[in-house]
Amino acid sequence: MNTPSIDTPSIVSPRRAVVLLSGGIDSATCLAIARDAGFDCHCLSLDYGQRHRAELEAARRVAQALGAKEHRVVRLDLAAFGGSALTDRNIDVPTDGAEGGIPVTYVPARNTVMLSLALAWAETLESRAIFIGVNAVDYSGYPDCRPEFVSAFERLANLATKAGVEGRRVTIHAPLIDLSKARIIRRGSALGVDYGITVSCYQADDRGRACGLCDSCRLRREGFAAAGIADPTPYAA
Amino acid sequence: MNTPSIDTPSIVSPRRAVVLLSGGIDSATCLAIARDAGFDCHCLSLDYGQRHRAELEAARRVAQALGAKEHRVVRLDLAAFGGSALTDRNIDVPTDGAEGGIPVTYVPARNTVMLSLALAWAETLESRAIFIGVNAVDYSGYPDCRPEFVSAFERLANLATKAGVEGRRVTIHAPLIDLSKARIIRRGSALGVDYGITVSCYQADDRGRACGLCDSCRLRREGFAAAGIADPTPYAA
Repeated sequence: MNTPSIDTPSIVSPRRAVVLLSGGIDSATCLAIARDAGFDCHCLSLDYGQRHRAELEAARRVAQALGAKEHRVVRLDLAAFGGSALTDRNIDVPTDGAEGGIPVTYVPARNTVMLSLALAWAETLESRAIFIGVNAVDYSGYPDCRPEFVSAFERLANLATKAGVEGRRVTIHAPLIDLSKARIIRRGSALGVDYGITVSCYQADDRGRACGLCDSCRLRREGFAAAGIADPTPYAA
Repeated sequence: MNTPSIDTPSIVSPRRAVVLLSGGIDSATCLAIARDAGFDCHCLSLDYGQRHRAELEAARRVAQALGAKEHRVVRLDLAAFGGSALTDRNIDVPTDGAEGGIPVTYVPARNTVMLSLALAWAETLESRAIFIGVNAVDYSGYPDCRPEFVSAFERLANLATKAGVEGRRVTIHAPLIDLSKARIIRRGSALGVDYGITVSCYQADDRGRACGLCDSCRLRREGFAAAGIADPTPYAA
């Protein structure tokens, strides 16, 4: 990895992007879109103390399959802070699809933390582009999946960094923000994404097989149905 | 640690604060100010692959000495991204005090990352206050030490989180932002901070003794001189 001098003028690589990659449908599609736009993609996954490793394995497969330049996993134990069913084993993952408001699967400040890390890496890569697969349609209960959140982060990024201070704007790309799950799946399929290697399930087993019951599985299944595309997800049951 | 249900109305603790603590003069003073204002202080240090452990040891001592409620250290290997003399052993720490622009000791997006983690913890603690000891006077070369950065983060925080969405504003307190080092030292001394247990040096030895040569040591020494207070720093040479 290069370690640019901060005192000399920077050679910025406008075609280099940091892409946040969870290993699910959305981030895989986001990576395909970034590649299709001509970016060299440096993928970043966060190992935040997930209940299962299947997601990170999926991220690794997706990065490789979609021609990412590199894939790094940063370990950060968000579970130490508690508060989410995804990282805290004392909170059950809901399976009834009936909860209102903000889901208990919400990880505190997760997208803020992930974008911050992407920003740190983008700065050392001298990249001006960060891609995040957030989506305000299917996940409207999450405050950090909304367009105003993405805009506020972009504003912050350009105040927080050397690049911003020196007038080279960083852009946060959220190409899925207003797409339905069905449209995301159609878009990714057109770009050649193999969704059979992605994992969305909140509680996939060690072999990456989905539970078929959690909210994430339900949204995923409904998405394939609405897209009119066969669901390639390996289900445990 | 409590793991609040996200579905039930929250009992917010307005007197609970997350305080970012590096173990240096600024964050120790910031903690003293937060305590003096009546906050129960939950201190957070980031183990971001620093060259030396002296800083984290100092943070532990400071949290204890100033009556923090608890102190947590989150590990995060920012060194994996490179780009700073503080985390990258291939870049020399400058000692001539003559560099212009952004110092090479700048860690990419560090304050953005630290505030993001503080926000995650604040959300699970149901705290509305985050304290950070950034200072725009002595460190004007760092983009993420400026008032506009702090304001932009506060705005982001209130868009990113459950608390913000539900109308309970999170405030980012940066009480040192416009103070000179001398005024910070006078303020802390009046609040009983023992600066002999803090570490500011970029390359302190294993026993916490400062090099006396780096920019941070120089600013610290000048600060004590300007404050008219005896410098209690243990120097190696």
